[in-house]
Amino acid sequence: MFGAIEAGGTKFRCMVGDGPTAIADEVRITTTAPQETLAEVIRFFTAQAIKHPIDAIGIGAFGPIDLDRNSATYGHITTTPKTGWQHQDLVGLVGDALKVPIGFDTDVAAAALGEYTWGAGQGIDNLVYLTVGTGIGGAALSAGRSLRGLVHAEMGHMLIPRVAGDSFAGSCPFHGDCFEGMASGPAIRKRWGQDPETLTTDHPAWQLQASYLALGLANIILMLSPHRIVLGGGVMRAELFTALRCRLLDLLAGYVNSPEITDSLEDYVVPPSLGNQAGVLGALVLARRAYEQESQP
Amino acid sequence: MFGAIEAGGTKFRCMVGDGPTAIADEVRITTTAPQETLAEVIRFFTAQAIKHPIDAIGIGAFGPIDLDRNSATYGHITTTPKTGWQHQDLVGLVGDALKVPIGFDTDVAAAALGEYTWGAGQGIDNLVYLTVGTGIGGAALSAGRSLRGLVHAEMGHMLIPRVAGDSFAGSCPFHGDCFEGMASGPAIRKRWGQDPETLTTDHPAWQLQASYLALGLANIILMLSPHRIVLGGGVMRAELFTALRCRLLDLLAGYVNSPEITDSLEDYVVPPSLGNQAGVLGALVLARRAYEQESQP
Repeated sequence: MFGAIEAGGTKFRCMVGDGPTAIADEVRITTTAPQETLAEVIRFFTAQAIKHPIDAIGIGAFGPIDLDRNSATYGHITTTPKTGWQHQDLVGLVGDALKVPIGFDTDVAAAALGEYTWGAGQGIDNLVYLTVGTGIGGAALSAGRSLRGLVHAEMGHMLIPRVAGDSFAGSCPFHGDCFEGMASGPAIRKRWGQDPETLTTDHPAWQLQASYLALGLANIILMLSPHRIVLGGGVMRAELFTALRCRLLDLLAGYVNSPEITDSLEDYVVPPSLGNQAGVLGALVLARRAYEQESQP
Repeated sequence: MFGAIEAGGTKFRCMVGDGPTAIADEVRITTTAPQETLAEVIRFFTAQAIKHPIDAIGIGAFGPIDLDRNSATYGHITTTPKTGWQHQDLVGLVGDALKVPIGFDTDVAAAALGEYTWGAGQGIDNLVYLTVGTGIGGAALSAGRSLRGLVHAEMGHMLIPRVAGDSFAGSCPFHGDCFEGMASGPAIRKRWGQDPETLTTDHPAWQLQASYLALGLANIILMLSPHRIVLGGGVMRAELFTALRCRLLDLLAGYVNSPEITDSLEDYVVPPSLGNQAGVLGALVLARRAYEQESQP
């Protein structure tokens, strides 16, 4: 049995189980002050551990986070704008309290791992998972391992051209009109003065949204050449996929000459299949891996 | 002893040796028709093999190329605009003629590997090599292996914003104003009506060039988070580095909060140290790896 934490800016989702068909229990905890939220998280797992021993816990966390195992602040949230959570140690706190190995990655990498293990990216060697919601986050998996470097990817903040004639300043506090600044939920809200959920299907917002999503996806393909892209998040809707696939083909202009893209884009850019469970299920995978790593001689 | 081929659009550079300080012989062959050029390449290695047995040959080739070992056209150049070279089999032809294992990757990945093994990226786990010349090519290495997916990366064609006020249409026949369309040698020539080599140091071309290079590098960092970027190619010059590093910091706007970037960008974006030998030396590494792989039980 493993524990999973999807540490989000509005809620912490905690689960005990071993996969989508083996969930022992789960709970959602509102994200308030770190001491309060984390105490409740630890209470949940402590109570669970009496019923079924927990071998490891995986955490998929909002960020930026420190993933460098050689760093003094490994396992911490770093410079988040989320009040009170700056420099919060997650791995140390949870690990010390529950005395189990802790797996750790970004929330998006955890969701990518969930879709890779049980969802729309199952068995896909090089997978990109992109989520478009209050922000735009992305993670790339290579053979089921998330790509990391100096820090984790921040592909939501890539700099993209504007759609011709668009003069919207963008909503990103760091970069203005980066990908996230033009195509996240808050960007749509700022641009149209309406919540994305209230915009009708025929609203021009969606055509523009498809164009910006296509720009972001084109750069992901040119940079990483993944075998599939799983595209989800609160702003996505079924109608967007057809339009963005057409625009994507236009943008690539035949340059990436691969049948997966030219002939079967409907199997290449796909919606997630685990819905909002991808992150917490992926955290279970992080837990299993942490356990396996600790168990090695 | 290994053989190396840097297969370029204007010349094929061939080498026999085992590293920068162990070069037995080398030759440059002008790229004409495939039959002619490849016959000369094979003659060179056949003659060499009499003097010193060659255990394997590495090829770093211009592209696009097929790197998928499960594909029927593995080892071929695919849809290149280079007349006569479309769908040319390289690995099969050279391997059949010389009866040795063949390592194969893009010319840029080979150069990246050269700099990783003996140059400015020595020992850097996640390295990006970017070359700005007649085109813009990039390769990312993760633990010394080039990242691949559906096809190889085409980061030169990523879509970037324009510098404010710039109305140049770009020079890329596929995408117009993509990174390569705005910042390659031909782009500079088309924009200013002059060869880059003839532009004086104080020409406004270089300030603009620094801005576009910074845009490309920012996206590479946001997407891949490499530990270092080696930036070379015929269009690069020492003076560009300071300007582009400053613009890069502006563009990232403190978002990628890593001391390597915020405090020591001069060690993070660096010129190559192997000059124009990076590609052919990297091809030696490809040869060695092909040999080691074949030798495994």
